[in-house]
Amino acid sequence: MSNHTYRVTEIVGTSQEGVDEAIRNGVARASETLHNLDWFEITQVRGQIENGRIAHYQVGLKVGFRLDDPK
Amino acid sequence: MSNHTYRVTEIVGTSQEGVDEAIRNGVARASETLHNLDWFEITQVRGQIENGRIAHYQVGLKVGFRLDDPK
Amino acid sequence: MSNHTYRVTEIVGTSQEGVDEAIRNGVARASETLHNLDWFEITQVRGQIENGRIAHYQVGLKVGFRLDDPK
Amino acid sequence: MSNHTYRVTEIVGTSQEGVDEAIRNGVARASETLHNLDWFEITQVRGQIENGRIAHYQVGLKVGFRLDDPK
Amino acid sequence: MSNHTYRVTEIVGTSQEGVDEAIRNGVARASETLHNLDWFEITQVRGQIENGRIAHYQVGLKVGFRLDDPK
Amino acid sequence: MSNHTYRVTEIVGTSQEGVDEAIRNGVARASETLHNLDWFEITQVRGQIENGRIAHYQVGLKVGFRLDDPK
Amino acid sequence: MSNHTYRVTEIVGTSQEGVDEAIRNGVARASETLHNLDWFEITQVRGQIENGRIAHYQVGLKVGFRLDDPK
Amino acid sequence: MSNHTYRVTEIVGTSQEGVDEAIRNGVARASETLHNLDWFEITQVRGQIENGRIAHYQVGLKVGFRLDDPK
Amino acid sequence: MSNHTYRVTEIVGTSQEGVDEAIRNGVARASETLHNLDWFEITQVRGQIENGRIAHYQVGLKVGFRLDDPK
Amino acid sequence: MSNHTYRVTEIVGTSQEGVDEAIRNGVARASETLHNLDWFEITQVRGQIENGRIAHYQVGLKVGFRLDDPK
Amino acid sequence: MSNHTYRVTEIVGTSQEGVDEAIRNGVARASETLHNLDWFEITQVRGQIENGRIAHYQVGLKVGFRLDDPK
Amino acid sequence: MSNHTYRVTEIVGTSQEGVDEAIRNGVARASETLHNLDWFEITQVRGQIENGRIAHYQVGLKVGFRLDDPK
Repeated sequence: MSNHTYRVTEIVGTSQEGVDEAIRNGVARASETLHNLDWFEITQVRGQIENGRIAHYQVGLKVGFRLDDPK
Repeated sequence: MSNHTYRVTEIVGTSQEGVDEAIRNGVARASETLHNLDWFEITQVRGQIENGRIAHYQVGLKVGFRLDDPK
Repeated sequence: MSNHTYRVTEIVGTSQEGVDEAIRNGVARASETLHNLDWFEITQVRGQIENGRIAHYQVGLKVGFRLDDPK
Repeated sequence: MSNHTYRVTEIVGTSQEGVDEAIRNGVARASETLHNLDWFEITQVRGQIENGRIAHYQVGLKVGFRLDDPK
Repeated sequence: MSNHTYRVTEIVGTSQEGVDEAIRNGVARASETLHNLDWFEITQVRGQIENGRIAHYQVGLKVGFRLDDPK
Repeated sequence: MSNHTYRVTEIVGTSQEGVDEAIRNGVARASETLHNLDWFEITQVRGQIENGRIAHYQVGLKVGFRLDDPK
Repeated sequence: MSNHTYRVTEIVGTSQEGVDEAIRNGVARASETLHNLDWFEITQVRGQIENGRIAHYQVGLKVGFRLDDPK
Repeated sequence: MSNHTYRVTEIVGTSQEGVDEAIRNGVARASETLHNLDWFEITQVRGQIENGRIAHYQVGLKVGFRLDDPK
Repeated sequence: MSNHTYRVTEIVGTSQEGVDEAIRNGVARASETLHNLDWFEITQVRGQIENGRIAHYQVGLKVGFRLDDPK
Repeated sequence: MSNHTYRVTEIVGTSQEGVDEAIRNGVARASETLHNLDWFEITQVRGQIENGRIAHYQVGLKVGFRLDDPK
Repeated sequence: MSNHTYRVTEIVGTSQEGVDEAIRNGVARASETLHNLDWFEITQVRGQIENGRIAHYQVGLKVGFRLDDPK
Repeated sequence: MSNHTYRVTEIVGTSQEGVDEAIRNGVARASETLHNLDWFEITQVRGQIENGRIAHYQVGLKVGFRLDDPK
């Protein structure tokens, strides 16, 4: 059995609803261009405030995916 | 165009429901006395447990706001 | 009045729904074997991704509880 | 029951005697202008040395206090 | 001689020119409303990019000042 | 000579007097149920404030002890 | 399918040979008293020096294991 | 309005002149291959010394850019 | 002489043997698709345990490489 | 007026009594071989436990001193 | 080819002008007594404020240099 | 019995073979000029890559040694 290598990329998912949806939005967008997504880890939770209300949640994520074995 | 200066204040928002509501409660309370709130950042998530259940979520937040230009 | 000592144990709560439920699941499981649970603190939020969707949220928690006074 | 919001302010207490007194001096000074002080947390311990002896202990403290409910 | 207490406030100074000017702008603005400013410490350097060029440098600063002795 | 393994447990010692006594109280309580205590390390110093005075010092400690060799 | 909870315990594995063996020694000792060990993470690598040579490698490890479902 | 996702990439900009120019050089190079660059954050400032003088400033930067909406 | 810009990518190399081999495996895999690899830095060492034995070492690595000068 | 340069050295002061005395012991010993000591900063507080009691407090300190102007 | 060992010393360079000059001043002073200086890394940027203006920039630096091979 | 003071110096050991040898090389070189070496702690593991292979492992170490009692 071979030893896989993984790559970790950093994204920021956003949502107008909350932290969980910002994670889901970021992972969903990443999965459109990256294959074999395997795990995520939150690095930071920030957000924009407008008129005293939260306009956007911004969740920093490290996302790991398995690199294909080169031929 | 002038260069604005921002101030960052640290608060702890609380909620009996969850993390997102604790953020919203803290930001709403801060907006009653501070103007021009611009962003927040979570510094810590803690909570109190009573009888094996979560009684309060306590979310530490840094909240940034633009200082008015002095006259 | 005596000075209590507390112990802090580290757990990982999981959920298929989101961060708040993973906290609640971890605290509920801990309360089955530990008495006098007093507070928690999030140390890390990670998760597993399967087929481009989040399969499990994994929330690292430090959980503090009061030690009984020894007789 | 309402959900309180807390504010966290950062101070540096000093003492010529030691760490404990520097904490007490800082908290005592803060309590003269802030109400409802609830907790502190040490962020840093430094000091000035003069002629090979410690002239001042300087203890960085975060001090939390409950915000009054706005009317 | 009494033991002074200091307060530490966090600001973000900005500049279109560079890091040093952002520090100076932030300290200058703070000195308009706070007396006895004594030291600063950089916490973070960020900036906004527009059309591939840096539009603003944003320098996070902790700024310490001596509290007056209460009467 | 065998290679020992150590376990590290986290506690919070408390005192109404100061940091040193909180360490001693926590270590003393831990030594009632754990054998072979070998070292400690402070992770955090916090405290409760009541009526502008420090009511309790709370010192987070990691405490290491040697595991007995299994038979 | 239920949501498992994991516990994380901290140990220090030691070896006279090197870092890898200290990890293996620590994990082997932990597995004698803990079931369902699932992962480890290095927190710290230290060691004792005697007569200018390394006498012991000491590797701090967090070790996670799945808690059995309570009946 | 959709919720954008951002990607964060890490670069090291260099300069023989100073920190500000190293930031500008790194951002300028990144903007040749990445679109929609939005912000940067300094992660580290290092440099090479030759013959007692600074030969190169090396500034670690996280650079964020908006991902295009997939069609 | 021009000022080079470097990119830093994050990978996880794995091995069934130990930390050094996991580093080598990750760097070898990265070098198949990235040119001008220049340095690495360990960010984290974790591993999977199966039946009380270490099944895989997982070593997080930041890997830096020089960007070609654009034409 | 010239711009001074300072050097920072790291020591560990010890005491059988407590944290403050360990700081004083370490600074006193450093002042026997280093001139112009100017400030200290605590980096770590650890200690040895023997028979359930604290045998030594070990306080890590960074100590700064002004370098003489070279002739 | 032998494997060199490097030593890392910590200094604080100062300047009345800005961050870059404080780095250069510190490195220049260090190079008067240390040979084979190879790299630096900023650990901290602080400064003194007098009358609302920055009197000194103080830049903490780790400076690495190659140890000569002992004969 | 007197209270010893320890000094902590930072070095970088290197090796073409791996992490353990880099530690040993650094400690061996340090022991040629420093007496009473007592412990080490890894602060960082980096390395140089040439032609897709690891050319040097570079292991940052803090090394502690007991200061002689002054006469």
